[in-house]
Amino acid sequence: MGENQLSNSQLYIGIDGGGSKCRATIYTQDHKQIGTGVSGRANPLHGLEQTFQSITESTQLALADAGLPPEACSQLVAGLGLAGVNVGHFYDQISNWQHPFKSMYLTTDLHTACIGAHNGADGAVIITGTGSCGYAHVGHQSISLGGHGFALGDKGSGAWLGLKAAEHALLALDGFACETALTDKLLAYFEVDDAIGIVENLAGKSSSVYAKLARIVLATAHEGDEVAIAIVKEGAAYISELARRLFTINPSRFSMIGGLAEPLLTWLDDDVAIKVSPSLSPPEFGACLFAQQQYSAESVA
Amino acid sequence: MGENQLSNSQLYIGIDGGGSKCRATIYTQDHKQIGTGVSGRANPLHGLEQTFQSITESTQLALADAGLPPEACSQLVAGLGLAGVNVGHFYDQISNWQHPFKSMYLTTDLHTACIGAHNGADGAVIITGTGSCGYAHVGHQSISLGGHGFALGDKGSGAWLGLKAAEHALLALDGFACETALTDKLLAYFEVDDAIGIVENLAGKSSSVYAKLARIVLATAHEGDEVAIAIVKEGAAYISELARRLFTINPSRFSMIGGLAEPLLTWLDDDVAIKVSPSLSPPEFGACLFAQQQYSAESVA
Repeated sequence: MGENQLSNSQLYIGIDGGGSKCRATIYTQDHKQIGTGVSGRANPLHGLEQTFQSITESTQLALADAGLPPEACSQLVAGLGLAGVNVGHFYDQISNWQHPFKSMYLTTDLHTACIGAHNGADGAVIITGTGSCGYAHVGHQSISLGGHGFALGDKGSGAWLGLKAAEHALLALDGFACETALTDKLLAYFEVDDAIGIVENLAGKSSSVYAKLARIVLATAHEGDEVAIAIVKEGAAYISELARRLFTINPSRFSMIGGLAEPLLTWLDDDVAIKVSPSLSPPEFGACLFAQQQYSAESVA
Repeated sequence: MGENQLSNSQLYIGIDGGGSKCRATIYTQDHKQIGTGVSGRANPLHGLEQTFQSITESTQLALADAGLPPEACSQLVAGLGLAGVNVGHFYDQISNWQHPFKSMYLTTDLHTACIGAHNGADGAVIITGTGSCGYAHVGHQSISLGGHGFALGDKGSGAWLGLKAAEHALLALDGFACETALTDKLLAYFEVDDAIGIVENLAGKSSSVYAKLARIVLATAHEGDEVAIAIVKEGAAYISELARRLFTINPSRFSMIGGLAEPLLTWLDDDVAIKVSPSLSPPEFGACLFAQQQYSAESVA
């Protein structure tokens, strides 16, 4: 085992960066959590500088939380699971970052989430938060589906639910579709009384702003609103189909993670819902395990 | 008539600013066109600074085209028809601009397009270019519909056609929908061979990038591709309904303008298509007529 050749005092930092926030947690060699920090979004699709800033900020917050000085950063071995780095040029740009760590290992947020959810074992995950995507890893096989970003993809995600609801409300307020309770709830949420008021609150805004509407859509669907039900059902049908596609490589475990995982569960098809197992550890722990594995492999080599 | 009290040598500049470009044309008091200039997009939804820069740049290009020095700008009476200024705070921010003109009169691009299309007479217009919207003005009544911006609204627009096509291609490439000729044409257009390649070319891009795909969608629909036909039909059905809503205040003329007006015509419902009259003058001339009317009214007052 390569670990014997490493210092027992080596610290790791697992970083999970997405469209809403960036969470960094520092772990000891034997997986004791000693400090954590949360900063703003870290998705290169929304800007490289902001991504680097969020990573640096969450790291410094984690160091402070662990009672370590800022300069201890250069002693950390970092694992980074980032949204958007399935896109080649973003992967390259972040890999080439003059990072502040001892070593940095980069992969997708899907990969580290999957490692975390199954504590390092093979498996499948679907993430439904601000965005949506699926990932499965079995032996040397892996599948990555969806995650194409707002507003191009991410069907069934919080931002998608919010966008569909806002689209429908605007059509309804212009007289092209039926106004239902969903329209009234969006107007009330923004404290406005017309289509322009909704546009003022959403035009040019990021996916996380749209994702905040998801809870309203889900709650209104539970109250029986036809438009909300149709939106949620369309999103959930896609998530169910996404799961079935991941099951084709026979993952031993399957977890749903992200802010919408629990509220969407009741809307999934039964054959999918029955297979959901709890996520064992958070994505930032998956990022730590990934970093340990990569660092250990390099140290042996 | 107030015009008698104005100098016969007063020059006007009509400016039409939208999501793709900004066009400025200088006119004499008696409507002779003496210079024109085109710059980048001028939509406050995409940034105020860029909007001001595009207005200034197109103005300077028009002055140069007219053989006038840059400082002649301060002698021009400007009419501005801008996308996005139906949103209150954008209207205020642009009105408060320390503009370089003698006087500046601001209204929506819809209003100036309508004035231009009917040479100052009452009427209705639908603009389908990068975005989509409808406007009608009859006496003291006016209706403004749609134009809520990409990706929230603008159904049937170029950007909307492009977004729907890209969404479908990504679902198809992920195996969630049928791959048709449309998918192949988008891959060929971007010179890529998978979903990630499409995402790399579209993620975070502006509506004008999506709008460039509209011609592909329309051409593929004409070749009989089922997916392209369904997208174009959904967009055209919305535009037909938009026209019928404008007809409720009985406008004497109706024009379709923008880059998609002509290619969409064959997809509109017959009762709408039969009512389309040619646009008489461009939006920047409408902006000039608007400025003349406002300036003349102020001079009289």
